[in-house]
Amino acid sequence: MTALTNPRSDRVRSVRALARRAVRSREGLFLAEGPQAVREALAHRPDAVRDLYLTAEAAARHTGVAAAARAAGIRPHEVSPEVAAAMCDTDTPQGVLAVCRVLTTDLATVLASGPGLLCILTEVRDPGNAGTVIRGADAAGADAVLLSDASVDVWGPKVVRASAGSLFHLPVVTGMRVEPMLQQVRAAGLVLFAADAAATQSLDGTDLGRPHAWVLGNEARGLDPAVQALCDEVVGVPIYGRAESLNLAMAATLCLYASARVRERRR
Amino acid sequence: MTALTNPRSDRVRSVRALARRAVRSREGLFLAEGPQAVREALAHRPDAVRDLYLTAEAAARHTGVAAAARAAGIRPHEVSPEVAAAMCDTDTPQGVLAVCRVLTTDLATVLASGPGLLCILTEVRDPGNAGTVIRGADAAGADAVLLSDASVDVWGPKVVRASAGSLFHLPVVTGMRVEPMLQQVRAAGLVLFAADAAATQSLDGTDLGRPHAWVLGNEARGLDPAVQALCDEVVGVPIYGRAESLNLAMAATLCLYASARVRERRR
Repeated sequence: MTALTNPRSDRVRSVRALARRAVRSREGLFLAEGPQAVREALAHRPDAVRDLYLTAEAAARHTGVAAAARAAGIRPHEVSPEVAAAMCDTDTPQGVLAVCRVLTTDLATVLASGPGLLCILTEVRDPGNAGTVIRGADAAGADAVLLSDASVDVWGPKVVRASAGSLFHLPVVTGMRVEPMLQQVRAAGLVLFAADAAATQSLDGTDLGRPHAWVLGNEARGLDPAVQALCDEVVGVPIYGRAESLNLAMAATLCLYASARVRERRR
Repeated sequence: MTALTNPRSDRVRSVRALARRAVRSREGLFLAEGPQAVREALAHRPDAVRDLYLTAEAAARHTGVAAAARAAGIRPHEVSPEVAAAMCDTDTPQGVLAVCRVLTTDLATVLASGPGLLCILTEVRDPGNAGTVIRGADAAGADAVLLSDASVDVWGPKVVRASAGSLFHLPVVTGMRVEPMLQQVRAAGLVLFAADAAATQSLDGTDLGRPHAWVLGNEARGLDPAVQALCDEVVGVPIYGRAESLNLAMAATLCLYASARVRERRR
Protein backbone atom coordinates (compact mmCIF):
# COMPACT_ATOMS: atom_id res chain seq x y z
CA MET A 1 0.00 0.00 0.00
CA THR A 2 1.39 3.40 -0.98
CA ALA A 3 0.86 6.07 1.63
CA LEU A 4 -0.74 9.38 0.69
CA THR A 5 1.90 11.95 1.57
CA ASN A 6 0.95 15.22 -0.14
CA PRO A 7 -1.02 17.46 2.24
CA ARG A 8 -1.87 19.77 -0.67
CA SER A 9 -3.47 17.15 -2.91
CA ASP A 10 -7.03 17.49 -4.20
CA ARG A 11 -8.11 14.53 -2.08
CA VAL A 12 -6.82 16.12 1.12
CA ARG A 13 -8.47 19.42 0.20
CA SER A 14 -11.81 17.71 -0.44
CA VAL A 15 -11.70 15.98 2.97
CA ARG A 16 -10.66 19.16 4.72
CA ALA A 17 -13.52 21.02 3.03
CA LEU A 18 -15.98 18.87 5.01
CA ALA A 19 -15.32 21.20 7.95
CA ARG A 20 -17.69 23.59 6.09
CA ARG A 21 -21.44 23.10 6.44
CA ALA A 22 -22.19 24.06 2.83
CA VAL A 23 -19.78 21.42 1.56
CA ARG A 24 -21.23 18.74 3.85
CA SER A 25 -24.75 19.54 2.65
CA ARG A 26 -23.75 19.52 -1.01
CA GLU A 27 -21.74 16.29 -0.80
CA GLY A 28 -23.88 14.46 1.74
CA LEU A 29 -20.68 13.56 3.58
CA PHE A 30 -19.07 14.31 6.92
CA LEU A 31 -15.84 13.52 8.72
CA ALA A 32 -15.45 11.27 11.76
CA GLU A 33 -12.14 11.93 13.56
CA GLY A 34 -10.32 9.86 16.14
CA PRO A 35 -10.27 6.19 17.05
CA GLN A 36 -13.47 6.12 19.07
CA ALA A 37 -15.77 7.75 16.51
CA VAL A 38 -14.26 5.76 13.66
CA ARG A 39 -14.46 2.45 15.53
CA GLU A 40 -18.14 3.08 16.28
CA ALA A 41 -18.77 3.98 12.63
CA LEU A 42 -17.12 0.76 11.44
CA ALA A 43 -18.86 -1.37 14.06
CA HIS A 44 -22.38 0.06 13.80
CA ARG A 45 -22.71 1.77 10.41
CA PRO A 46 -20.05 0.34 8.06
CA ASP A 47 -22.46 1.15 5.21
CA ALA A 48 -21.89 4.83 5.99
CA VAL A 49 -18.08 4.71 5.79
CA ARG A 50 -16.91 5.83 2.36
CA ASP A 51 -13.17 6.23 3.00
CA LEU A 52 -11.00 5.29 5.93
CA TYR A 53 -7.63 7.03 6.48
CA LEU A 54 -5.02 5.76 8.92
CA THR A 55 -1.43 6.70 9.62
CA ALA A 56 0.94 3.72 9.99
CA GLU A 57 1.40 4.56 13.65
CA ALA A 58 -2.36 4.77 14.28
CA ALA A 59 -2.94 1.45 12.49
CA ALA A 60 -0.40 -0.20 14.78
CA ARG A 61 -1.65 1.50 17.93
CA HIS A 62 -5.42 1.34 17.42
CA THR A 63 -5.64 -2.31 16.41
CA GLY A 64 -9.39 -2.29 17.15
CA VAL A 65 -9.91 0.17 14.31
CA ALA A 66 -7.97 -1.94 11.81
CA ALA A 67 -9.81 -5.08 12.97
CA ALA A 68 -13.21 -3.39 12.68
CA ALA A 69 -12.29 -2.22 9.17
CA ARG A 70 -11.31 -5.75 8.12
CA ALA A 71 -14.54 -7.14 9.62
CA ALA A 72 -16.48 -4.56 7.60
CA GLY A 73 -14.55 -5.31 4.40
CA ILE A 74 -13.17 -1.78 4.26
CA ARG A 75 -9.58 -1.25 3.18
CA PRO A 76 -7.92 1.76 4.83
CA HIS A 77 -5.83 4.31 2.93
CA GLU A 78 -2.49 4.85 4.61
CA VAL A 79 -1.69 8.53 5.09
CA SER A 80 1.31 10.40 6.44
CA PRO A 81 0.84 12.28 9.75
CA GLU A 82 0.98 15.55 7.77
CA VAL A 83 -1.89 14.41 5.55
CA ALA A 84 -3.97 13.30 8.56
CA ALA A 85 -3.40 16.68 10.19
CA ALA A 86 -4.26 18.57 7.00
CA MET A 87 -7.50 16.61 6.57
CA CYS A 88 -9.07 17.30 9.91
CA ASP A 89 -10.34 19.83 12.34
CA THR A 90 -8.66 18.84 15.61
CA ASP A 91 -5.35 20.23 16.79
CA THR A 92 -4.13 16.82 17.88
CA PRO A 93 -5.40 14.34 15.32
CA GLN A 94 -4.76 10.77 16.30
CA GLY A 95 -4.19 9.62 12.73
CA VAL A 96 -7.65 8.01 12.37
CA LEU A 97 -10.23 9.56 10.03
CA ALA A 98 -13.27 8.37 8.12
CA VAL A 99 -15.28 10.16 5.47
CA CYS A 100 -18.86 9.05 6.13
CA ARG A 101 -22.17 9.40 4.31
CA VAL A 102 -24.65 11.58 6.20
CA LEU A 103 -26.85 9.24 8.24
CA THR A 104 -30.12 11.12 8.30
CA THR A 105 -33.35 9.12 8.63
CA ASP A 106 -36.79 10.55 7.91
CA LEU A 107 -39.33 11.10 10.62
CA ALA A 108 -41.92 8.75 9.11
CA THR A 109 -39.45 5.86 9.40
CA VAL A 110 -38.73 6.69 13.03
CA LEU A 111 -42.41 6.96 13.90
CA ALA A 112 -43.26 3.71 12.06
CA SER A 113 -40.89 1.87 14.41
CA GLY A 114 -43.16 2.64 17.40
CA PRO A 115 -40.73 4.73 19.47
CA GLY A 116 -41.22 5.04 23.22
CA LEU A 117 -38.69 7.81 23.90
CA LEU A 118 -37.51 10.60 21.59
CA CYS A 119 -35.27 13.63 22.11
CA ILE A 120 -36.12 16.76 20.09
CA LEU A 121 -33.69 19.70 19.82
CA THR A 122 -35.41 22.80 18.50
CA GLU A 123 -32.82 25.58 18.64
CA VAL A 124 -29.63 24.19 20.11
CA ARG A 125 -26.77 26.21 18.64
CA ASP A 126 -23.67 25.10 20.51
CA PRO A 127 -22.14 22.02 18.85
CA GLY A 128 -20.70 20.68 22.10
CA ASN A 129 -24.12 20.81 23.74
CA ALA A 130 -25.81 19.12 20.79
CA GLY A 131 -23.25 16.30 20.71
CA THR A 132 -23.44 15.82 24.47
CA VAL A 133 -27.24 15.61 24.37
CA ILE A 134 -27.05 13.02 21.56
CA ARG A 135 -24.60 10.98 23.65
CA GLY A 136 -26.94 11.27 26.65
CA ALA A 137 -29.97 10.27 24.55
CA ASP A 138 -28.05 7.22 23.33
CA ALA A 139 -26.99 6.26 26.87
CA ALA A 140 -30.59 6.61 28.07
CA GLY A 141 -31.76 4.29 25.30
CA ALA A 142 -33.78 6.87 23.37
CA ASP A 143 -35.12 5.62 20.06
CA ALA A 144 -34.06 8.64 17.99
CA VAL A 145 -32.90 12.27 18.15
CA LEU A 146 -34.71 14.91 16.07
CA LEU A 147 -33.15 18.31 15.32
CA SER A 148 -35.23 21.15 13.88
CA ASP A 149 -33.93 23.24 10.98
CA ALA A 150 -33.00 26.03 13.43
CA SER A 151 -30.47 23.79 15.22
CA VAL A 152 -26.73 23.42 14.76
CA ASP A 153 -25.60 21.14 11.91
CA VAL A 154 -25.31 17.73 13.53
CA TRP A 155 -22.61 16.56 11.07
CA GLY A 156 -20.13 19.29 12.03
CA PRO A 157 -16.83 18.18 13.58
CA LYS A 158 -17.54 19.45 17.10
CA VAL A 159 -20.94 17.74 17.29
CA VAL A 160 -19.48 14.49 15.96
CA ARG A 161 -16.69 14.67 18.54
CA ALA A 162 -18.93 15.47 21.52
CA SER A 163 -21.36 12.70 20.55
CA ALA A 164 -18.51 10.17 21.10
CA GLY A 165 -19.82 7.76 18.46
CA SER A 166 -23.50 8.01 19.41
CA LEU A 167 -24.37 9.49 16.00
CA PHE A 168 -23.65 6.01 14.64
CA HIS A 169 -25.88 4.33 17.24
CA LEU A 170 -29.31 5.84 16.93
CA PRO A 171 -31.45 7.35 14.16
CA VAL A 172 -31.11 11.10 13.64
CA VAL A 173 -33.70 13.25 11.86
CA THR A 174 -32.73 16.76 10.72
CA GLY A 175 -33.92 19.70 8.66
CA MET A 176 -37.63 19.82 9.52
CA ARG A 177 -39.44 22.89 10.74
CA VAL A 178 -40.35 22.54 14.38
CA GLU A 179 -44.15 22.83 14.08
CA PRO A 180 -44.77 19.99 11.59
CA MET A 181 -42.18 17.90 13.42
CA LEU A 182 -43.97 18.23 16.75
CA GLN A 183 -47.38 17.74 15.13
CA GLN A 184 -46.30 14.48 13.49
CA VAL A 185 -44.72 13.17 16.68
CA ARG A 186 -47.86 13.90 18.64
CA ALA A 187 -50.10 12.45 15.92
CA ALA A 188 -48.11 9.23 16.32
CA GLY A 189 -49.33 9.04 19.92
CA LEU A 190 -46.35 10.44 21.83
CA VAL A 191 -46.77 12.93 24.65
CA LEU A 192 -44.65 16.08 24.15
CA PHE A 193 -42.81 17.21 27.28
CA ALA A 194 -41.21 20.64 26.98
CA ALA A 195 -38.14 20.87 29.22
CA ASP A 196 -37.79 24.39 30.57
CA ALA A 197 -36.10 25.78 33.65
CA ALA A 198 -39.03 28.12 34.32
CA ALA A 199 -41.61 25.31 34.47
CA THR A 200 -43.77 24.91 37.55
CA GLN A 201 -44.27 21.16 37.01
CA SER A 202 -41.38 19.09 38.38
CA LEU A 203 -39.70 16.22 36.60
CA ASP A 204 -40.21 14.09 39.71
CA GLY A 205 -43.98 14.58 39.56
CA THR A 206 -44.35 13.81 35.86
CA ASP A 207 -45.90 10.57 34.56
CA LEU A 208 -43.25 9.19 32.22
CA GLY A 209 -45.03 5.87 31.68
CA ARG A 210 -46.49 6.82 28.28
CA PRO A 211 -44.48 6.99 25.03
CA HIS A 212 -43.08 10.52 24.97
CA ALA A 213 -40.60 13.01 23.56
CA TRP A 214 -38.47 15.56 25.41
CA VAL A 215 -38.47 18.91 23.60
CA LEU A 216 -35.46 21.15 24.30
CA GLY A 217 -34.86 24.79 23.38
CA ASN A 218 -31.98 27.18 23.08
CA GLU A 219 -29.13 26.97 25.61
CA ALA A 220 -29.34 30.65 26.56
CA ARG A 221 -32.96 31.64 26.01
CA GLY A 222 -34.66 28.33 26.86
CA LEU A 223 -37.60 26.97 24.91
CA ASP A 224 -39.51 29.40 22.67
CA PRO A 225 -42.97 30.04 24.22
CA ALA A 226 -44.59 29.32 20.84
CA VAL A 227 -42.96 25.88 20.89
CA GLN A 228 -43.92 25.32 24.53
CA ALA A 229 -47.52 25.99 23.51
CA LEU A 230 -47.32 23.09 21.03
CA CYS A 231 -46.28 20.71 23.83
CA ASP A 232 -48.54 18.83 26.24
CA GLU A 233 -46.70 19.59 29.48
CA VAL A 234 -43.88 21.94 30.47
CA VAL A 235 -41.52 20.25 32.91
CA GLY A 236 -38.53 21.51 34.89
CA VAL A 237 -35.70 19.70 36.62
CA PRO A 238 -35.96 20.57 40.32
CA ILE A 239 -33.18 22.71 41.78
CA TYR A 240 -32.37 21.60 45.32
CA GLY A 241 -29.58 24.10 45.98
CA ARG A 242 -28.96 27.72 44.97
CA ALA A 243 -28.07 27.29 41.29
CA GLU A 244 -30.34 29.26 38.99
CA SER A 245 -30.53 26.45 36.50
CA LEU A 246 -28.65 23.55 34.94
CA ASN A 247 -27.00 23.74 31.56
CA LEU A 248 -28.89 22.32 28.59
CA ALA A 249 -26.98 19.05 28.30
CA MET A 250 -27.30 18.29 32.02
CA ALA A 251 -31.03 19.09 32.08
CA ALA A 252 -31.59 16.96 28.97
CA THR A 253 -29.63 14.04 30.41
CA LEU A 254 -31.55 14.16 33.70
CA CYS A 255 -34.90 14.20 31.84
CA LEU A 256 -33.89 11.37 29.50
CA TYR A 257 -32.59 9.25 32.38
CA ALA A 258 -35.77 9.78 34.38
CA SER A 259 -37.60 8.37 31.35
CA ALA A 260 -35.12 5.51 31.01
CA ARG A 261 -35.59 4.44 34.63
CA VAL A 262 -39.37 4.25 34.18
CA ARG A 263 -39.00 2.28 30.94
CA GLU A 264 -36.52 -0.08 32.58
CA ARG A 265 -38.84 -0.79 35.50
CA ARG A 266 -41.66 -1.75 33.12
CA ARG A 267 -39.54 -4.26 31.21
CA MET B 1 -16.98 59.10 38.97
CA THR B 2 -14.04 59.21 36.56
CA ALA B 3 -13.90 56.25 34.24
CA LEU B 4 -10.71 54.21 33.90
CA THR B 5 -9.80 54.48 30.23
CA ASN B 6 -6.19 53.36 29.86
CA PRO B 7 -6.05 49.66 28.89
CA ARG B 8 -2.27 49.66 29.51
CA SER B 9 -2.40 50.89 33.10
CA ASP B 10 -0.86 48.91 35.96
CA ARG B 11 -4.30 48.25 37.40
CA VAL B 12 -5.54 46.71 34.15
CA ARG B 13 -2.39 44.61 33.89
CA SER B 14 -2.80 43.32 37.42
CA VAL B 15 -6.40 42.26 36.77
CA ARG B 16 -5.49 40.68 33.46
CA ALA B 17 -2.68 38.76 35.18
CA LEU B 18 -5.30 36.84 37.18
CA ALA B 19 -5.75 34.69 34.08
CA ARG B 20 -2.52 32.98 35.24
CA ARG B 21 -2.70 30.32 37.93
CA ALA B 22 0.58 31.38 39.57
CA VAL B 23 -0.68 34.95 39.97
CA ARG B 24 -4.01 33.79 41.40
CA SER B 25 -2.22 31.59 43.95
CA ARG B 26 0.20 34.33 44.94
CA GLU B 27 -2.46 37.05 45.26
CA GLY B 28 -5.29 34.89 46.61
CA LEU B 29 -7.55 36.56 44.05
CA PHE B 30 -9.53 35.53 40.97
CA LEU B 31 -11.69 37.20 38.36
CA ALA B 32 -15.45 36.76 37.94
CA GLU B 33 -16.59 37.83 34.47
CA GLY B 34 -20.06 38.61 33.16
CA PRO B 35 -23.30 39.73 34.76
CA GLN B 36 -24.41 36.33 36.07
CA ALA B 37 -21.22 35.42 37.93
CA VAL B 38 -20.81 38.94 39.32
CA ARG B 39 -24.43 39.18 40.43
CA GLU B 40 -24.12 35.87 42.28
CA ALA B 41 -20.87 37.04 43.89
CA LEU B 42 -22.50 40.26 45.10
CA ALA B 43 -25.65 38.50 46.28
CA HIS B 44 -24.09 35.52 48.04
CA ARG B 45 -20.49 36.43 48.87
CA PRO B 46 -20.16 40.23 48.91
CA ASP B 47 -17.33 39.74 51.45
CA ALA B 48 -15.31 38.14 48.65
CA VAL B 49 -15.67 41.01 46.16
CA ARG B 50 -12.62 43.26 46.30
CA ASP B 51 -13.19 45.40 43.20
CA LEU B 52 -16.13 45.72 40.87
CA TYR B 53 -15.65 47.08 37.32
CA LEU B 54 -18.54 48.14 35.09
CA THR B 55 -18.77 49.92 31.78
CA ALA B 56 -21.40 52.68 31.63
CA GLU B 57 -23.39 50.64 29.16
CA ALA B 58 -23.27 47.52 31.36
CA ALA B 59 -24.31 49.52 34.43
CA ALA B 60 -27.35 50.76 32.52
CA ARG B 61 -28.21 47.40 31.00
CA HIS B 62 -27.56 45.07 33.94
CA THR B 63 -29.42 47.02 36.58
CA GLY B 64 -29.50 43.92 38.82
CA VAL B 65 -25.72 44.08 39.11
CA ALA B 66 -25.70 47.75 40.10
CA ALA B 67 -28.52 47.14 42.59
CA ALA B 68 -26.74 44.15 44.13
CA ALA B 69 -23.58 46.25 44.46
CA ARG B 70 -25.48 49.03 46.22
CA ALA B 71 -27.14 46.50 48.54
CA ALA B 72 -23.69 45.12 49.38
CA GLY B 73 -22.23 48.61 49.90
CA ILE B 74 -19.75 48.14 47.08
CA ARG B 75 -19.03 51.07 44.81
CA PRO B 76 -18.20 50.06 41.22
CA HIS B 77 -15.31 51.50 39.22
CA GLU B 78 -16.47 52.74 35.85
CA VAL B 79 -14.28 51.46 33.02
CA SER B 80 -14.22 52.04 29.29
CA PRO B 81 -15.14 49.07 27.04
CA GLU B 82 -11.45 48.85 26.03
CA VAL B 83 -10.40 48.52 29.66
CA ALA B 84 -13.04 45.86 30.34
CA ALA B 85 -11.85 43.91 27.31
CA ALA B 86 -8.21 44.23 28.31
CA MET B 87 -8.92 42.99 31.83
CA CYS B 88 -10.57 39.74 31.01
CA ASP B 89 -10.33 36.38 29.36
CA THR B 90 -13.49 36.21 27.26
CA ASP B 91 -13.71 37.30 23.64
CA THR B 92 -17.02 39.04 24.24
CA PRO B 93 -16.86 40.62 27.67
CA GLN B 94 -20.13 42.12 28.74
CA GLY B 95 -18.56 44.97 30.63
CA VAL B 96 -19.04 43.39 34.07
CA LEU B 97 -16.03 42.18 36.08
CA ALA B 98 -15.21 41.56 39.72
CA VAL B 99 -11.87 40.82 41.33
CA CYS B 100 -12.73 38.39 44.13
CA ARG B 101 -10.87 36.89 47.05
CA VAL B 102 -10.35 33.13 46.69
CA LEU B 103 -13.20 31.45 48.56
CA THR B 104 -11.57 28.28 49.77
CA THR B 105 -12.86 26.70 52.98
CA ASP B 106 -11.00 24.02 54.90
CA LEU B 107 -12.20 20.46 55.11
CA ALA B 108 -12.55 20.48 58.91
CA THR B 109 -15.06 23.32 58.67
CA VAL B 110 -17.08 21.48 56.04
CA LEU B 111 -17.11 18.25 58.04
CA ALA B 112 -18.04 20.07 61.26
CA SER B 113 -21.25 21.25 59.55
CA GLY B 114 -22.53 17.65 59.34
CA PRO B 115 -22.73 17.32 55.55
CA GLY B 116 -25.07 14.78 53.98
CA LEU B 117 -23.84 15.00 50.38
CA LEU B 118 -20.38 15.92 49.07
CA CYS B 119 -18.83 15.92 45.61
CA ILE B 120 -15.10 15.08 45.38
CA LEU B 121 -13.09 15.68 42.20
CA THR B 122 -9.78 13.85 42.28
CA GLU B 123 -8.19 14.40 38.87
CA VAL B 124 -10.53 16.48 36.76
CA ARG B 125 -8.39 18.46 34.32
CA ASP B 126 -10.82 20.11 31.94
CA PRO B 127 -12.02 23.44 33.35
CA GLY B 128 -15.38 23.24 31.58
CA ASN B 129 -16.04 19.84 33.15
CA ALA B 130 -15.02 21.01 36.61
CA GLY B 131 -17.25 24.10 36.43
CA THR B 132 -20.18 22.09 35.11
CA VAL B 133 -19.85 19.53 37.91
CA ILE B 134 -19.77 22.33 40.50
CA ARG B 135 -22.92 23.80 38.97
CA GLY B 136 -24.56 20.35 39.06
CA ALA B 137 -23.50 19.79 42.68
CA ASP B 138 -25.01 23.15 43.61
CA ALA B 139 -28.27 22.37 41.76
CA ALA B 140 -28.46 18.99 43.51
CA GLY B 141 -28.06 20.68 46.88
CA ALA B 142 -24.67 19.20 47.74
CA ASP B 143 -23.12 20.61 50.90
CA ALA B 144 -19.65 21.20 49.42
CA VAL B 145 -17.30 20.38 46.55
CA LEU B 146 -13.78 19.10 47.29
CA LEU B 147 -11.01 19.15 44.65
CA SER B 148 -7.77 17.23 45.19
CA ASP B 149 -4.42 18.86 44.47
CA ALA B 150 -4.23 16.96 41.14
CA SER B 151 -7.31 18.75 39.81
CA VAL B 152 -7.67 21.82 37.63
CA ASP B 153 -7.44 25.19 39.43
CA VAL B 154 -11.01 25.97 40.37
CA TRP B 155 -10.43 29.76 40.27
CA GLY B 156 -9.43 29.82 36.59
CA PRO B 157 -11.67 31.80 34.22
CA LYS B 158 -13.13 28.79 32.39
CA VAL B 159 -14.11 27.01 35.61
CA VAL B 160 -15.66 30.18 37.01
CA ARG B 161 -17.62 30.67 33.79
CA ALA B 162 -18.88 27.07 33.53
CA SER B 163 -19.89 27.08 37.19
CA ALA B 164 -22.38 29.89 36.38
CA GLY B 165 -22.12 31.46 39.83
CA SER B 166 -22.21 28.21 41.81
CA LEU B 167 -18.70 28.84 43.16
CA PHE B 168 -20.30 31.60 45.23
CA HIS B 169 -23.06 29.31 46.50
CA LEU B 170 -21.39 26.38 48.18
CA PRO B 171 -18.18 25.73 50.10
CA VAL B 172 -15.19 24.66 48.02
CA VAL B 173 -12.14 22.87 49.44
CA THR B 174 -8.95 22.67 47.35
CA GLY B 175 -5.32 21.67 47.48
CA MET B 176 -5.43 18.50 49.60
CA ARG B 177 -3.89 15.21 48.60
CA VAL B 178 -6.56 12.71 47.75
CA GLU B 179 -5.75 10.05 50.35
CA PRO B 180 -5.97 12.21 53.50
CA MET B 181 -9.01 13.96 52.02
CA LEU B 182 -10.89 10.69 51.56
CA GLN B 183 -9.75 9.37 54.93
CA GLN B 184 -11.04 12.46 56.74
CA VAL B 185 -14.37 12.38 54.91
CA ARG B 186 -14.86 8.74 55.77
CA ALA B 187 -13.77 9.29 59.38
CA ALA B 188 -16.57 11.87 59.61
CA GLY B 189 -19.06 9.09 58.90
CA LEU B 190 -19.70 9.55 55.18
CA VAL B 191 -19.84 6.61 52.80
CA LEU B 192 -17.48 7.05 49.82
CA PHE B 193 -19.06 6.14 46.48
CA ALA B 194 -16.57 5.97 43.61
CA ALA B 195 -18.30 6.81 40.32
CA ASP B 196 -16.78 4.80 37.51
CA ALA B 197 -18.11 3.72 34.14
CA ALA B 198 -16.59 0.24 34.56
CA ALA B 199 -18.41 -0.46 37.85
CA THR B 200 -20.61 -3.54 38.14
CA GLN B 201 -22.83 -1.98 40.81
CA SER B 202 -25.56 0.21 39.33
CA LEU B 203 -26.56 3.63 40.58
CA ASP B 204 -30.19 2.46 40.67
CA GLY B 205 -29.33 -0.36 43.09
CA THR B 206 -27.26 1.76 45.48
CA ASP B 207 -28.49 2.77 48.94
CA LEU B 208 -28.14 6.55 48.94
CA GLY B 209 -29.94 7.02 52.26
CA ARG B 210 -26.76 7.45 54.34
CA PRO B 211 -24.59 10.60 54.33
CA HIS B 212 -22.17 10.11 51.43
CA ALA B 213 -19.70 11.58 48.99
CA TRP B 214 -19.40 10.98 45.24
CA VAL B 215 -15.75 10.55 44.22
CA LEU B 216 -14.98 11.32 40.57
CA GLY B 217 -11.82 10.68 38.56
CA ASN B 218 -10.23 11.88 35.36
CA GLU B 219 -12.46 12.58 32.34
CA ALA B 220 -10.47 10.32 30.01
CA ARG B 221 -9.00 7.62 32.24
CA GLY B 222 -11.74 7.35 34.86
CA LEU B 223 -11.02 6.94 38.54
CA ASP B 224 -7.55 5.77 39.56
CA PRO B 225 -7.80 2.17 40.89
CA ALA B 226 -5.78 3.20 43.96
CA VAL B 227 -8.43 5.83 44.73
CA GLN B 228 -11.25 3.37 44.03
CA ALA B 229 -9.68 1.09 46.61
CA LEU B 230 -10.04 3.84 49.22
CA CYS B 231 -13.79 4.05 48.54
CA ASP B 232 -16.56 1.92 50.03
CA GLU B 233 -18.46 1.11 46.84
CA VAL B 234 -17.78 1.57 43.13
CA VAL B 235 -20.93 2.62 41.31
CA GLY B 236 -21.73 3.13 37.63
CA VAL B 237 -24.54 4.98 35.88
CA PRO B 238 -26.45 2.35 33.88
CA ILE B 239 -26.22 2.61 30.08
CA TYR B 240 -29.56 1.71 28.51
CA GLY B 241 -28.54 2.23 24.88
CA ARG B 242 -25.33 1.66 22.91
CA ALA B 243 -23.17 4.53 24.20
CA GLU B 244 -19.94 3.33 25.76
CA SER B 245 -20.21 5.81 28.60
CA LEU B 246 -21.39 9.26 29.61
CA ASN B 247 -19.08 12.21 29.93
CA LEU B 248 -17.83 13.11 33.39
CA ALA B 249 -20.14 16.06 34.01
CA MET B 250 -23.24 14.14 32.95
CA ALA B 251 -22.33 11.08 35.04
CA ALA B 252 -21.62 13.30 38.05
CA THR B 253 -24.90 15.17 37.65
CA LEU B 254 -26.89 11.93 37.40
CA CYS B 255 -25.21 10.57 40.56
CA LEU B 256 -25.72 13.79 42.51
CA TYR B 257 -29.35 14.05 41.46
CA ALA B 258 -30.03 10.44 42.43
CA SER B 259 -28.74 11.42 45.90
CA ALA B 260 -30.80 14.60 45.90
CA ARG B 261 -34.03 12.73 45.17
CA VAL B 262 -33.45 10.37 48.09
CA ARG B 263 -32.63 13.28 50.40
CA GLU B 264 -35.72 15.17 49.25
CA ARG B 265 -38.00 12.18 49.89
CA ARG B 266 -36.74 11.91 53.47
CA ARG B 267 -37.48 15.55 54.22
